[in-house]
Amino acid sequence: MDQNLESTIALLERTPAALDALLRGLPEIWTERNEGENTWTVRSVMTHLIHTEEENWIPRARMILQFGESREFAPLDREGSVRNGQGKTLEHLLDEFARARTKGLDDLRAMNLTTEDLRRYGRHPSFGAVTMSQLLATWAAHDLTHLHQISRTMAFQYREAVGPWARFLGVMQCAGHSASA
Amino acid sequence: MDQNLESTIALLERTPAALDALLRGLPEIWTERNEGENTWTVRSVMTHLIHTEEENWIPRARMILQFGESREFAPLDREGSVRNGQGKTLEHLLDEFARARTKGLDDLRAMNLTTEDLRRYGRHPSFGAVTMSQLLATWAAHDLTHLHQISRTMAFQYREAVGPWARFLGVMQCAGHSASA
Repeated sequence: MDQNLESTIALLERTPAALDALLRGLPEIWTERNEGENTWTVRSVMTHLIHTEEENWIPRARMILQFGESREFAPLDREGSVRNGQGKTLEHLLDEFARARTKGLDDLRAMNLTTEDLRRYGRHPSFGAVTMSQLLATWAAHDLTHLHQISRTMAFQYREAVGPWARFLGVMQCAGHSASA
Repeated sequence: MDQNLESTIALLERTPAALDALLRGLPEIWTERNEGENTWTVRSVMTHLIHTEEENWIPRARMILQFGESREFAPLDREGSVRNGQGKTLEHLLDEFARARTKGLDDLRAMNLTTEDLRRYGRHPSFGAVTMSQLLATWAAHDLTHLHQISRTMAFQYREAVGPWARFLGVMQCAGHSASA
């Protein structure tokens, strides 16, 4: 298998269990609070991860195989995905994410992608031509961007509790950097 | 128990298993590469976490109980801690961290800290008076700052692989923010 794809899958396989070990049963101060107006709670992030698992990665990979650059990917409804999680417990969302990820990886493996497939192009609605390889690498990096966001959102809840240590903790200086943080 | 202390312990209990689920068995591209000169690999971060577990949190909490503000905490040798990990596998470090954390939490519980103890002051070598409560909150936030760093360091390895997605991924814009990132 392509070395990059192997590293991507190795990470994708581990994220659900890592989030489960970190988050299941945590007090709500860590999981139900955000970083201020128009920011996400940890629970919102989990809902977003489930949504992208179902609507984004595998559907886009299939579009590349089927249509190449001739059709644009559907844009992702980021806020809609978060509304879908309302009324579900965090534990429910962790289970749902684990199941969705298992299915996504099964689907990916069933594609039996060749080196040539990884070089195929699709068309992103915002920035045009992207390869299958870039899409799949982004799937893994997207896990990391949200793990980064989760650790920052959690740390934000302790910004006063840590007193003078706040300025020595990198995570408390992080402003998020982008809409996809 | 003090509500803050309860939240702190809940997080501290979960970090070793979360890091284990994320990191054990990952290909070295994720764990043995850094973000450039004078930055840490994931393995270095694990060594640092073990070192702070042994030298920092509980020893400082004991100093607060014993000496209050009359004695300064010993400064932490950050780079020394990283040298200690040389020659150990990541798996070994994950086990060592889990054991050190269990011991640290046992020691913390054995202190039976009262609300009054949490308000006691100690003296930090860089920024002076700090309370027991701030020290213990920082223990948890320190886990988060390094989880934030780990996710960023890992994402850095895919900065080229993701192609045009790089500028939409918050974690790839993160510069670390501090020496303690």
